[in-house]
Amino acid sequence: MSTAERESTLENRLLRRIQGLIGQAPIQLEFDQEKIGPPDPTKNESVVIRDRRTLAHMVLDPELGFGDGYMQGRIEINGNLVNILEQVFRSMRSSGKRSWYGRLFSNWLQHMQGNTRGGSAANIHHHYDLNTDFYKLWLDSHLVYTCAYFPTHSATLEEAQKAKLEHVCRKLRLQPGERVVDAGCGWGALALHMARHYGVSVQAFNISHEQIQYARAQARREGLTDQVTFVEDDYRNISGRFDAFVSVGMLEHIGREHYGELGRVLQRTIGNSGRGLMHFIGRNRPAPFSTWIRKRIFPGAYVPALREALEIFERQNYSVLDVENLRLHYAKTLEHWLARYERSVESVSSMFGPEFVRAWRLYLAGSIASFRTGMLQLFQVVFAGSACRQIPWTRAYLYTESARLENESQWTPARS
Amino acid sequence: MSTAERESTLENRLLRRIQGLIGQAPIQLEFDQEKIGPPDPTKNESVVIRDRRTLAHMVLDPELGFGDGYMQGRIEINGNLVNILEQVFRSMRSSGKRSWYGRLFSNWLQHMQGNTRGGSAANIHHHYDLNTDFYKLWLDSHLVYTCAYFPTHSATLEEAQKAKLEHVCRKLRLQPGERVVDAGCGWGALALHMARHYGVSVQAFNISHEQIQYARAQARREGLTDQVTFVEDDYRNISGRFDAFVSVGMLEHIGREHYGELGRVLQRTIGNSGRGLMHFIGRNRPAPFSTWIRKRIFPGAYVPALREALEIFERQNYSVLDVENLRLHYAKTLEHWLARYERSVESVSSMFGPEFVRAWRLYLAGSIASFRTGMLQLFQVVFAGSACRQIPWTRAYLYTESARLENESQWTPARS
Repeated sequence: MSTAERESTLENRLLRRIQGLIGQAPIQLEFDQEKIGPPDPTKNESVVIRDRRTLAHMVLDPELGFGDGYMQGRIEINGNLVNILEQVFRSMRSSGKRSWYGRLFSNWLQHMQGNTRGGSAANIHHHYDLNTDFYKLWLDSHLVYTCAYFPTHSATLEEAQKAKLEHVCRKLRLQPGERVVDAGCGWGALALHMARHYGVSVQAFNISHEQIQYARAQARREGLTDQVTFVEDDYRNISGRFDAFVSVGMLEHIGREHYGELGRVLQRTIGNSGRGLMHFIGRNRPAPFSTWIRKRIFPGAYVPALREALEIFERQNYSVLDVENLRLHYAKTLEHWLARYERSVESVSSMFGPEFVRAWRLYLAGSIASFRTGMLQLFQVVFAGSACRQIPWTRAYLYTESARLENESQWTPARS
Repeated sequence: MSTAERESTLENRLLRRIQGLIGQAPIQLEFDQEKIGPPDPTKNESVVIRDRRTLAHMVLDPELGFGDGYMQGRIEINGNLVNILEQVFRSMRSSGKRSWYGRLFSNWLQHMQGNTRGGSAANIHHHYDLNTDFYKLWLDSHLVYTCAYFPTHSATLEEAQKAKLEHVCRKLRLQPGERVVDAGCGWGALALHMARHYGVSVQAFNISHEQIQYARAQARREGLTDQVTFVEDDYRNISGRFDAFVSVGMLEHIGREHYGELGRVLQRTIGNSGRGLMHFIGRNRPAPFSTWIRKRIFPGAYVPALREALEIFERQNYSVLDVENLRLHYAKTLEHWLARYERSVESVSSMFGPEFVRAWRLYLAGSIASFRTGMLQLFQVVFAGSACRQIPWTRAYLYTESARLENESQWTPARS
């Protein structure tokens, strides 16, 4: 056997190893002259690995090896990235186990990115303090960077984000004059919407300096500074009493070991008479969050199983009133984002370079595939204390204007 | 001090002890000449304890002492039983701790009433094999013995039970020709409704002989025996493949230690492509179920925290799509039942005697108070496997006919 033949055999074995790790997805893997895997007769999709280091890295940790390889241009995709990832995720659901290396690196990351107050600040800075111009390229005009709600499939992203803000406000049953706390307020769209349309006063917290600056400027522009206060501080420092608590897209960032603290924040802000809504990415069952996403995109993130998130409410004796799973809406939201992103690739590249372009493409495409396949879920949980007087009779008011009015007038406390 | 004075002092101390155990509810406690507690200036409600044994029992275990004392006529109520219980439950939520005796008896009961196959049969026989004529006195005409769904406050019980069956069927998105398994089918109302209105075929399981006999007769009367099979067997013996799994009011009876078995039944009946609905009484957080209810009314019952129930779905990797809390509807359902029950008290007494009359009045009244105060919750959980193709786009179709039709036509699988 010549040296070339031996190497070819080794590479072929490594490719087979990777194929074994990613499961039975109908994707062709290519390295140099080697090609393995079932060629899809209609689509001819393949993953082309450009160098040996990447090949070896993918054997050690297929997720991180693929992620960094793709980001650095050492892996190329023939075909549709979202579809390829979706097929791989579907087949991994049954066969996928983490390698020892994958587990080790995952645990090390978790340790390094802990969400102490200082850790949270660094983790959030990494993602959310990228300049706002970047997010303007591909988010909707109000910069809502969470799952939208599409009343119909044909709604635009702008319409769907507005519908999401409305959906959240309706679920909270906001009344004029009430006090609301918004934990993890992003660029302020929800806080401003609540003040503008529901006449409530809002204290909105965020530790991203860039976002808070932007939100404050928006409040000034709209003349809402009397009603909305944007506070650059950690959720653990929220104080004062409120009628309602809302948090959209923060839970994923606080880390499971801090759920108890979040629960105590709820108790001291809304007590036994308040209600709240938590909107977060979740899972069917506990699992560590994607190592690559945590390494490159969202340091410190943990995506809880629904059951794990419910511990927050259980410990404080809150009643769960409503849970809605909007995972298909997140897939659709991300499709809009990715399409806009692709149209702005040149601008992104001039801001951050080609590696960044590829990393964020992979993050958006991988997220679409995760929500489509059910690897990730999106939950909206409405909860209330036992003395809360804002428990809706049915949920019809969320969907029909007539039922909404009827519900308001019919509301009577359960007490005789 | 005379003997009479000493006894009076002892009794007074026992009354104070009871008052301490039930908390700060504005209820007057009376024994012989002794009266303690804040007299309600408007209502003059009081609990009159007739003998020393009951007084002592209430100190050892206020719940069981009160329950058995009331049942046996050794405690009398001046005022409205539901209101008194509601006030006691509200004040117990903050102060109530079980006595050592209460805990001991509670644990002993749990041990004695285990839900092995034989144990379940005995437990279910105790409650559900009371003759059907008894339940006909106070349930709706279709004998639906679970929480109803009142589209409006003024709906009748008959309308609300029919609306509940519809609500469940819509949530399940039943399609003609599908196969459905109904676990714990009661007198068969839901199984027959699904067959009649949705064109599905149903296998319905129940271990109550009396109920199964009744359900079979109904199926024959309606000519639905080809579509609906009523099986007198334990849920653990369900076999065959189905598109959807539904269980309304069974989870409370199977015992927490059997949730794993129930999960495996789900997996082998609907697999990864099916969906299901579980309707059950739940709690905000784990606690033993009322000792008195378990002793006298529902042997073997356990009411789970929502989080505990979700373990069933989590272990099988099902996605929770929707959770609705209908606890105020259960309070209202029970108000209807209690009113009908009171109108039939003479018939009940001639069937089972006055102790039974009082025991069931207390059970119905106590349940109203429990749902009003949030000691108990009523959850409907919709879940689905990751390959399920019946995930609704929004929940609007549950509430508006137009959205329902739109939703049907818009449905496209998430795959490209």
